[in-house]
Formats: sequence, structure tokens, C-alpha cells
Amino acid sequence: MQRCPQRWIGKPVRRREDERFLTASATFAGDIDLTGQLHLRIVRSTQAHARIAGIDVEEARSQPGVRLVLTGEDLTGIGTVPLEEAGYHEIYPNLEAFTQPVLAVDRVRYVGQPVAAVFADDPYLAEDAAELVSVDYEPLPVLLDPVSSLESEIDLFPGYGNEGARIEKAYGDVDGAFAEAAHVVCHEYTVGRHSGVPMETRNFVVQPDPSRDILYIWGTVHVHGNMRVLSRILGMPETSLRMRHVEIGGNFGVKGDVFPEYVVAAWAARRLRRPVKWVEDRQEHMVATSHAREQVHRMGLALNGAGEILAMRDEIFHNHGAFFRQTEPLVSDITTGIVFGPYRVPSYEATLHAVFTNKTPLAAYRAPGRYESTFARERLLDLAAAAVGISPVEIRRRNLLRAKDLPWTPGIDIVHEPFHFDSGDVVDHFDRALSEAGWDEWVTEAAALRAEGRYVGVGFGVLMDKGGLGLYETGSVEVSPVGRVRVLTGASSVGQGVETVLAQIVAEQLQLDPQLVDVEHSDTELVPDGIGSWSSRSTVLAGGAARMAAIEVVEKAKRLASTMLEVDEADLQLADGAVTVRGADSRLSLFEIAGRWDAYSARLADDQPGLRADAVYRNNLMNYPYGVTLVQLEVDPETGGHEFLRFFTTAETGRIINPMTTRGQIIGAAVQGIGGALYEEFTYEDDGQPTATSFMDYLLPAALEMPDVDIFTTEDAPSPDNPLGAKGLGEVGIIAVGAAVASAFDDALGDGSHTDRLPLRPEDIFMRCQLTHKPRS
Amino acid sequence: MQRCPQRWIGKPVRRREDERFLTASATFAGDIDLTGQLHLRIVRSTQAHARIAGIDVEEARSQPGVRLVLTGEDLTGIGTVPLEEAGYHEIYPNLEAFTQPVLAVDRVRYVGQPVAAVFADDPYLAEDAAELVSVDYEPLPVLLDPVSSLESEIDLFPGYGNEGARIEKAYGDVDGAFAEAAHVVCHEYTVGRHSGVPMETRNFVVQPDPSRDILYIWGTVHVHGNMRVLSRILGMPETSLRMRHVEIGGNFGVKGDVFPEYVVAAWAARRLRRPVKWVEDRQEHMVATSHAREQVHRMGLALNGAGEILAMRDEIFHNHGAFFRQTEPLVSDITTGIVFGPYRVPSYEATLHAVFTNKTPLAAYRAPGRYESTFARERLLDLAAAAVGISPVEIRRRNLLRAKDLPWTPGIDIVHEPFHFDSGDVVDHFDRALSEAGWDEWVTEAAALRAEGRYVGVGFGVLMDKGGLGLYETGSVEVSPVGRVRVLTGASSVGQGVETVLAQIVAEQLQLDPQLVDVEHSDTELVPDGIGSWSSRSTVLAGGAARMAAIEVVEKAKRLASTMLEVDEADLQLADGAVTVRGADSRLSLFEIAGRWDAYSARLADDQPGLRADAVYRNNLMNYPYGVTLVQLEVDPETGGHEFLRFFTTAETGRIINPMTTRGQIIGAAVQGIGGALYEEFTYEDDGQPTATSFMDYLLPAALEMPDVDIFTTEDAPSPDNPLGAKGLGEVGIIAVGAAVASAFDDALGDGSHTDRLPLRPEDIFMRCQLTHKPRS
Repeated sequence: MQRCPQRWIGKPVRRREDERFLTASATFAGDIDLTGQLHLRIVRSTQAHARIAGIDVEEARSQPGVRLVLTGEDLTGIGTVPLEEAGYHEIYPNLEAFTQPVLAVDRVRYVGQPVAAVFADDPYLAEDAAELVSVDYEPLPVLLDPVSSLESEIDLFPGYGNEGARIEKAYGDVDGAFAEAAHVVCHEYTVGRHSGVPMETRNFVVQPDPSRDILYIWGTVHVHGNMRVLSRILGMPETSLRMRHVEIGGNFGVKGDVFPEYVVAAWAARRLRRPVKWVEDRQEHMVATSHAREQVHRMGLALNGAGEILAMRDEIFHNHGAFFRQTEPLVSDITTGIVFGPYRVPSYEATLHAVFTNKTPLAAYRAPGRYESTFARERLLDLAAAAVGISPVEIRRRNLLRAKDLPWTPGIDIVHEPFHFDSGDVVDHFDRALSEAGWDEWVTEAAALRAEGRYVGVGFGVLMDKGGLGLYETGSVEVSPVGRVRVLTGASSVGQGVETVLAQIVAEQLQLDPQLVDVEHSDTELVPDGIGSWSSRSTVLAGGAARMAAIEVVEKAKRLASTMLEVDEADLQLADGAVTVRGADSRLSLFEIAGRWDAYSARLADDQPGLRADAVYRNNLMNYPYGVTLVQLEVDPETGGHEFLRFFTTAETGRIINPMTTRGQIIGAAVQGIGGALYEEFTYEDDGQPTATSFMDYLLPAALEMPDVDIFTTEDAPSPDNPLGAKGLGEVGIIAVGAAVASAFDDALGDGSHTDRLPLRPEDIFMRCQLTHKPRS
Repeated sequence: MQRCPQRWIGKPVRRREDERFLTASATFAGDIDLTGQLHLRIVRSTQAHARIAGIDVEEARSQPGVRLVLTGEDLTGIGTVPLEEAGYHEIYPNLEAFTQPVLAVDRVRYVGQPVAAVFADDPYLAEDAAELVSVDYEPLPVLLDPVSSLESEIDLFPGYGNEGARIEKAYGDVDGAFAEAAHVVCHEYTVGRHSGVPMETRNFVVQPDPSRDILYIWGTVHVHGNMRVLSRILGMPETSLRMRHVEIGGNFGVKGDVFPEYVVAAWAARRLRRPVKWVEDRQEHMVATSHAREQVHRMGLALNGAGEILAMRDEIFHNHGAFFRQTEPLVSDITTGIVFGPYRVPSYEATLHAVFTNKTPLAAYRAPGRYESTFARERLLDLAAAAVGISPVEIRRRNLLRAKDLPWTPGIDIVHEPFHFDSGDVVDHFDRALSEAGWDEWVTEAAALRAEGRYVGVGFGVLMDKGGLGLYETGSVEVSPVGRVRVLTGASSVGQGVETVLAQIVAEQLQLDPQLVDVEHSDTELVPDGIGSWSSRSTVLAGGAARMAAIEVVEKAKRLASTMLEVDEADLQLADGAVTVRGADSRLSLFEIAGRWDAYSARLADDQPGLRADAVYRNNLMNYPYGVTLVQLEVDPETGGHEFLRFFTTAETGRIINPMTTRGQIIGAAVQGIGGALYEEFTYEDDGQPTATSFMDYLLPAALEMPDVDIFTTEDAPSPDNPLGAKGLGEVGIIAVGAAVASAFDDALGDGSHTDRLPLRPEDIFMRCQLTHKPRS
């Protein structure tokens, strides 16, 4: 019996995290200053591909205040930065060959690659000395594009070739379907290279314990995974690498690796027995923190006369850049397994070429594989609609998954797990979304305005996300006699509001105010095992673990109270954070119970002291939120500028824990989706020199570029695969933005062009306007 | 089947700890310097007893660099420093009334009591400003002596009186025995006030987490107990108080409390959000760190005509000083329950008056209650021998416990546990000890030398110690794939060699080299629960826990190897740190097994990752080592100086884990025993002003004063109460030193005096020589 059903779950509880940020008491790694610390400056490759004929560090080494200068030669013993998951080897057989050395040895493979490391008493000395390191490069031919790299004679990894892996996923008779189709449409789509670009660059501080072989580390996002990887490369037990809590100023997937810079900092701190601090500047960040996205999709659709999809085929060229990083095998795998989206695709074949080039290595970035493939699929569906002669809305209606199609288990694996879409009704959601947005009026209005000579268009994209992954998460709940509840979680707070959400979930179980609940995370000393926050997994997995632990705490409280109150356990119930006796006045608050069960009393009874439970929640089933993003915009033909008139994103979310944080996630994702669609791109000269290494050239949307985002959510299909019924909502808002924006631009310009490349940059739009616009005068 | 019986246990493995000290990489709290730290200086009472009429802090507060000045008024909300153990209340009903405020309010009770606290940017500013704090004292009458305090009309704690508790322990018909005795001897013995005086004074560094309500703390000895006490007084959850490892430069029982200085430092750091460092200077240490020992024993013995003890009676006046501190209730309880020593005492009555005075509060100091009561008992036995007309050796032979007397359970509790002496043969050990020492020759030789006019004497004391207490200890063993084994223990390293001993115990179970085993402790982040190192408990309790965890690790390794090697578990055995298959070549080292059982594999199988076990070892049975200390010395009658000619200590030790660390413990204890017998005393003027506040006046024995200590141990009676068969050996070497030295001086001087007060200071000896010595010329 639950006395207060849903007292906190589903409520817009204010974010616990914000007080720190609003009162400026939040501490980032860059704020950590340790007595005696050295500052690290990395010497980076100025060449995209070259042999290192020699490195002269003598002048740098002799500068006053310089304590150490390292090159690749000094670190050959420790090898390359390994990937965490052994399971990746099943996807990429020669994974080790493609991992990155800490400092380059013999050869550099991208501009920005760490070549040497200078440690000095202050950051300015370090930077000045780094400029005195002289590297003798012998340039080698450069490969930048994944398609041409795959075809090239130039062998970037001799003995292994330029294709790190080829991933193929298929079901059904694709060839047969294409042979008998009434309509076949094919097109090539490209999503350019951009990335998460968090406000905080990478920052890393490492302090050796002066008397023990232990390193204290501030600045990693995925503390447990990074602990495991650093353990392996440094040869130190995992518990000797103690990752400490700091705030993370954004991650979005690109900042979670063990980076070469972290390894060299840790190695030197351990050797010198002095703290080392590394603060990345923005220019370094733009060439050396992981990039993302760059993919080419050659996609085909076979349809029958009624516009129903018979088959989908996609050949994907994924530009890994120069090396593998942590999450990349996942990105390739997910991309290959999710191109079909929330559609009833009877046969399917996707082949992904994981190709190396001479660019910065890639990482996962918010909705990896989904943003790219959704752009391609939704654009191609618009073409297919035209070929069939029906509207873009109608072709979705005829192909989106309906309740009666579920469970949809076409027989394909995605990250070792069968794709299993098991609840909801996508067509129904789609129809309600259009109706809620007033889509028909948008269309009518745009047409009317175009008739007035204005360049107004509409477009939409349908999306399916996947949340979850990572098998398990840890969670503990501890009631302190001083009147606080502590939740320890393997998740991390990267802006998504996980502290608030977990406080709500635990408060719900303990039936007390979430303001009494503190959530601790990203601290391997308090939380020895965990997986972390990525892949929209925290609410489901960390929430599941915290919930389990809270339930166990309530059980223990009742067991103890039964003895303390001398009452049968069956007569006890929980109400308002206290165990009460049915039909009597006796009560013991959870805090009182915890206080009475002190170390001595508990151990005497062969029990654990206090009121605490540790849980591991296992769930490797992904969940699949879906929705639509709809856009109405106007282009200024004189300048190529644009204005969003309407921006509407919908999602079937499963059970929402906190509508306020959900809203924040969707708006934040929309910003980044717009960035990837219209502004952000890492551009290169032919010789591999990056040309967007500052915010002068890498355009980032800011508040002025942002539309008002309207949001519509349905909770019709709570996930049947977790007790909260929740789905991962961290990425859903970004997925269809590229497709919707491209469609709306094509509609607004009415020039017959089919946008097949993102970003659609301001200069591209301006050029199209120049070609189509007839000035009124 | 154990392939390598006792490969490491019992071997003189070199101390793991020493490398840090010898290479100067050991870090003490005083070495911790944090960016932005403030320095604390305590303003201490200059009066032994006074009303505070007013405190003027304005001038101090206005000094440049001073950030905060606190007085008791600012801290009234947090109350007094609580004691940890709820169980103490059973011994001392009004405990709370006698605990110490963090800063004095209204009244000061001893010279050195904290009155105000100054926080400044550097320690010199803080000290200068502290001198500007002006306190207006109105002196009150002073009580210094426990006997007169008990009788005084002056009420130190109005409403409670000066007797904090009266503890009575008795069995048998004592009155009857005294009435019918052939011989009755009675005498009053006094042991003066001295203390542990560790090389490192108290040092305490506290750092608030800048974004969370968490304090990181360096410098506490008993990290878990201190965490629990600080949690209560600060109102913070225990896991918000994160005690970090530093080396401890000696404790000996006197430095383990939560002291008022720690609380004020933590309180201010939390409020100011800045790190606070406190380094105690030696003069502060001598008045403000806990003192120890001061007791008066009024003891009587009833014997029959054969010199067999019929009854023992003792009235003890224990001078608590001004307040209760953590371990004091234990000291009083243990004293009352252990006066009889290893003798067959058929009836017994001891009454202890726990009396408050205007001196520094007491704490436990190495062998509390045993050093004092053994001095009294052994001296009185010497008197009894004379009364009966037998030798001091003979009276022991007739009364010490024999194998046939065991188990000796006279029906008395000591710290909530029945006194239970269950193994050995004290007479046998005593005889072997005398024989091993060559006691008869010592006696003959001394007599011969005295006949030559030299002042040579012999003396001995028989001792019984008790090891253990504290109910349980925690221990974890973790095998890291990188080739190290980590032991996590609730014990702490305070110089006793626990890291080495635990490494041996675990290496024995895992059958690998103890050099591969790292022991981590005193770190609440790595070890969330524990009790700590005091009461000679670490080998038995922490060793028991580490052994349990190691056994579980071996079991888990076999279970995993059985699957990995596809072999029945029954066919597996452990050899040289690897699981091997009987009759086959297959083997997996523990490190390989740990590496294969990574987070993903283990969680997939619903198991904990890695190769680790966490154990809680419970054992509240104390163990009772026993032995003799024998001394031969010569006094220089001209100066009162002396020279130890022979110093011999024996012990029945149970199973010894490491004879080298055992030897170190016994020698270290002997030094401190000599200090307490001949040098160390906190002396006072009548108005309560301490007169021994530096090493000019408080005499500490150094290398020059030390004899060569010969040691003889027997391992005839392994403790039946723990699987190691071990006993606590940290205190055994100090216990009988006072008795033996006093006896030898009396023998050497031959002046008929009976030394009944310790220390026997150089000036006392000189005065006695002046009275007795006839210069030869």
C-alpha cells in the first residue's frame, strides 16, 4: 500500500544543482590549485601527417622554472591509450593497432596531436618553453575524406589499411525488395564534422599522495571508466586512482575519455611527486578534444505503389579521424543498427566503413548515429513522398510503427543486444503531435506568406532515440542520524539534473522531502564502482539503482523498528519518513532508527551499522523514445539570414520524473541541433590544416540564434523494461533538428534544391539566395 | 591441505612502513599545505580555575590578516565534545555533564583550556593576534589532588560533585579473608602524572569542499571514531567527514580523541569555506594534549601462613583532570578490573573514585591501569614476602596462576566482558624467565658488588596485560590485475608495524610474497567503517579481518577459475599465488583471474567485479599476555645517577606474527616505562600552574638513558580465542617496568626505604643518596 502515490515523481522539483552555480560556489577542475603544482603545456603537431625526424627539447628543458620535458621516447614503455570495454574487440578485431600513443612516436597523424609535454612552475613559463621545442617533420600525404581514404593507395596504418572495421547489419530480402519495388529513391547525404564544444574545456589536475603510490585526480567525467583505463596504462591498482568530484561544465559525450594529456599529466605527477595541473585553452580544444559526426550516407529506399517501404539500404562512411577513442566503436555500431528509425522497414541492410584519416579522432556526441542517420532517412523520405506522389506527412503515416506492429523485433543486434521496440504507437503520437502543433495552419500560413513574396517554409523530421546501455549502475542510500539522506550514485552530473531526479526517486520511496536528500557522485572514494552518465542512461539505470537501495532501506528500517518498538513487522508502515505502528501512536523516524543502530549495537547483532543499502541495478535493455521536430522559418534573401518563426519538438517519453529537467534537456538539445544544422563545422585546408580553431571561424549558436522551443510530450508508453517506466531523454531533442531545418529551408527557398549536406552554413544559404532571389525593386 | 605451512607468519619480515620514513617521503599532517589555508591559534586559559568575567577580542580581530576570532559564545549552539561510545553511560551515569566545551564558556577549569580561537593568513599573524585577546578572569579555588578533591567542600561541577563515577568490582569474601589472615600488608602507592609525549604534536588540517558540505580532514588517529564524534557535534552525516591518511608520529593513546581544537578548526573551515591548519607547539602539547596515569592506590593483601593470597583490596583515586575525554571511562573500568594481575586471588574488592580536579584531562596511555596497578601490586607483594618471611620470587611462585588453575574466571567484568584467563601457565613462564635471565646470578653478583661498596641492586615485576577490545574490525583484500594485492583495514599505523603484519597474514593465505601486498588504512574514503588501533587490538582484530577476507578471496578465485578453466572446483588448489589444477599444467594467477573478471563480465554474471572480499571480524574476548621484567642497576651515590646493568623483559605472547616488530614494541614500551619510572612528570604549583611545559622541565629519556633490552618470549599458550592464536603485544613491555625499577633501586640503595611513588626522579634519588651514602674518603 502506497500512502502518498507519486508525491515527488512527475513533479517539477527545482534543480538541486543550481544553487551551487547561482551562488558561484561550484568548483571546476580549473579552480583546483594545489600547493607546489606544476603546469603542463602540450606541444602539438603542426602537421596533419608527417614523419618525426627529430625533436629537440634542450632549449625548452633549460628554461628557468621548467621541471620536465617529455617526448614519446620517454613513454614508449606504457603503450597506447587502451579502450575500456573488452567487448569492443568483437566489433573491431584490430582495435589495439588504432589506439593513440600518449605522445607521438615517429609519426604524427593529425594537427593537434600531442608530441611533447612541458612541465613548469607556472603556466606562462610552460607555454613559453613549449614554443622552444623544435620538431623536425617530414611531411607525408594527407587523407581527409572518408570515402577517398577508403579508396586511397596510401596506407595510414601499414598492415591494417585505412578501414578500421566494416560493420554490417541486415535482415530480410533487400535485393529482392529493390528488384520488385514500384519506387526506388537513392541519395547521398553528408553530415559535417562538428562537436559538443562544452563551455568548460578539458581540465585535469592530478596530485600524487606524497607517501603512497596513489594519485588523486580531478577533472574526469566518467570517473569509474577512466579509473579503469588509467589503471591499465599506468599499471596501478584501480583503487590507487582516486577520482574526485568536481563540476563538469558540459560534456555531451566528447569529454569523457582518458585522453593522452591526462595520461602524461598523471605519469609525470607520479614520477615527480608533485601535483600537475593542465588547463586546455580553447584553440587546443578545437583541434584536440574529440570531434564528432562526420558521416556520409549512401541511402536507398524501395517502396511499393502505396508508398509503403519495402526495404532500406545504407552504405555509411564514418570518418574516425586519426585514432580510435573510447566511445567510437559504440558510435559505429549504433549508427549501423538504427538507420531505419521508428518505421516498419521489412528488410534492411546497412554497411558502415569505419575509416581513418588525418583529422582529430572522433567521439560520441549527443545522439551519435541518430542525428546523422535521421537527417539522411528523413530527407530521403521527403524525396520518396514526392516520387510516390503523396505528402511528406502521408508517407510517414503509412510507414511509422503502429501499436499493432509491436513488439517490433526485426532481428538485428545493436551493441550486443537485440533491437526490441516494445511499446507505444508512433503513428498515433505523430498525428497528435501535428495536431498539437497546428501543423496544417503552419503549412497554410507559410504558403500564404510565400505568396506575399516572403521566404517562409516548414519542415519536420520524425525521430527515434535509444536510451540506456552499459548493463548496470550502482546506487546507495544512507540515512544519517543528523537528518540528511545521502544517495551515492555511479552516475555523474553533467548538467542533466541527475541529482534532482535521484533525490525525487529516493524521496518518493522514503516519503520525505527531496530537499533532505543529498546526491553524491563522481567520486570513486565514496562510490567505488559505477558506469556513469552517457547514452541517456542515468534516469533509468542510476534511478533504478537508487530506487532499489531506497526500498532496501525501508525494509531494513522496518526490520529494526520492529525490534526497537517491540512490534510485529507486519504492523509497521512507512509514512512521512517515519516507521509508524498501525493503530498506535508509536513512531520512529528513519533518522532516529539510523542513530540507534550505531556501530557497536549493529556489530553486536552481526549487522551493518546505520541505515544504508547498496544496490546494483542491472538493465541492458535499451528504451526507445520517439517524436517529431517541426520547424517554421523565414529566410532573409538579402543576407541569407533566417528567423525561426516556430520550433516545436515532441516526444513520447515514458514516465517523466521531472518535467522541468526534461524540458531543459529538450531545449538544450535543440540548440545543439541547430548548431549542427546551420553553424558548426570543423573545416580544413587540403593539407589537413584546420581552419576553424576559434569561435571566429567555428560558429556556435548563442541566445540570439535560438528560437522559442515549444514542447509537447506524451507519457502513453511507459517503458515496460524498468520499474520507473522511464526512458532516456537526454538526446531526444537533437535528433531530428537537422532534417527538419533542412526541409524547412528547402521549402522556404522553393528553389528545387534538396539539401543533402549539413551544416547548411550562412554562406551556403546566401549563395542559394543569390541564385534564386529576384529583388523586388 | 596447506602446501607451505607458515611461510610468512612468524618470520622477521622487514617493516613495510620504514621505507617512507627512511626516504623522507612520509607525510604528516603538518606537511599538508593547502592553497588559501588559514592558520589557527588557540588562546588558552592561564588560570587553573576561574570565572570568565569578559573576553575582549576586538584588538585581535582588527589585526591585518586576521579573518575570524571565536569565543565560547559563538559556539554555544554545538555543545560539548561528546564521547563516542554509548556504552560508557552505563559506567558513568552523568557523563555529559563532565564533557568539555569546545571553547570555555563562563568558566575555565585548567591551565591550557581553549578559550578563544584566532584564524589568520599565516601562523605568525595568528599567534601575535592571539596574544591580543584579553580575558578577564576572576580566580576560583583550585583542586589538584584526587584524594583532597574527593574530600573537598569545593564543588567543581555544582550538582554533580567532584566524583564523576565510582566503580566497584568485587568477588569472594574479602572481609572474611582479611579477618582470618595470618598476614595483612597495606600500603599507599602513587603513580604520578605523565603521558605519551609523541614526537609529533597534534596537527589538524581541514579543507571544506568548495561546492559541497563536506570536510576533508588530515591528522586524526582514530579516523572512524573521530568521524562519528565529529558527525555528532557538527551535525553533518558521517560520510561528509572524510578523514584522510597521513602518517602519525606516535600516539600511545593520548592523541586519539576528537579534541576541542579539532572541532573549532572544522567549524570555522566550514563556515569560512577556507582550509584551516592547526599545528600544536610543544608547550601547548604539554598542557593541552591529554595527560595520563595519575592514580593513588590504597592497597591491602591478606595472606595465610604459607604466604598464599587470601584476598586483595584496593581503593583507587583516579585524577581525571578537568573533564572527561574519549577513552577515560575505559581506563577507569580496566584499572578496577585488573589490579589482581596473573595471580590466584580468591577474593577481591576494588573501588575506583573517578575524581575531577583542575588539571589537564587524562587519556589512556600505553597499558593504562596496568602500569599503575602493577606498580602497586608488585611492590606490595615485595612487602608481603618480607612479612611472610619468604623471598619475592617464592611469594610469586606460590600465588601465580598455574595451568591447573585455568580457566581462571573469578566472576568479574572488565569493559562489559567477563574476565577470562584461559590459557598458559604463569608459574612455569616465571620460572623459565628467571632461569633464562640467570636471575640467581644477578642476585649473587649484585650482593658481591654491594659488598665492594657499590650500589648495585636487582628487582623485578610480574605483569599481566590485556589485548583486544572494540568488538570488531573490518578488513578487505583486493587483488589487482596489475600485480598488487591491496589490504584495506580499519586499523591504523601508529608505529606498531601493522602494515607489515597484515601483509604477512594476507600473503600467508594467498601464498605470495608480502612485498606484493599494500596495506591501506586511516582513510575513511577507502575504508568506510572500522575501529582503529588501540588497546593492543590490531594483530588479533585487524589481522583476523584481513585473514577472513583473504580466505574469501581464495574461495572466489577458485570459484572463478573453475569456470574459466572448465575444471571442477574440487580439483583446484592454490599454490604460489595461482590457482592450479591437480595433476595438470593449467594455472591462472590470482592477478589473471582478477583481470578477467572485469566490471562487464562480472555484472553480467550478477557478481561483484574483480577479486575482492570484505570481511568484518568480530571478537570481543580479550587476551592476556603475561611476563616478567627484571632489572639490575647501579646507582652513583655522588650524583644520584644510575646505570642499567641488565634489563630483561619476557612475555608469553601467543603466536607471534613478526618477531622483529614484537621486539620493537617491547623495546619501545621499555623506554616509556623507564620514563614513567624515573623521569617524566607533569608538576604543578599549588595554584595549578604547570611547571613542566617544556623538555627543560619534563624529562624524557633518550637513547643515552636507555639500557640494552634483552627479550625472552614463549609461544606456549596461543590464544584459543582467535584463529591466529595471537595476543596483543603493544603494551606488554611497559607494564612491570615501574615495579622492577623501584624494587632494584631499593635493593641498590639498601636504605630500608620502600619506594611507593613514581617517578623516582633524579632529585629524589640524589636526596636518598645524601642520606645513606658514606663517602669512602
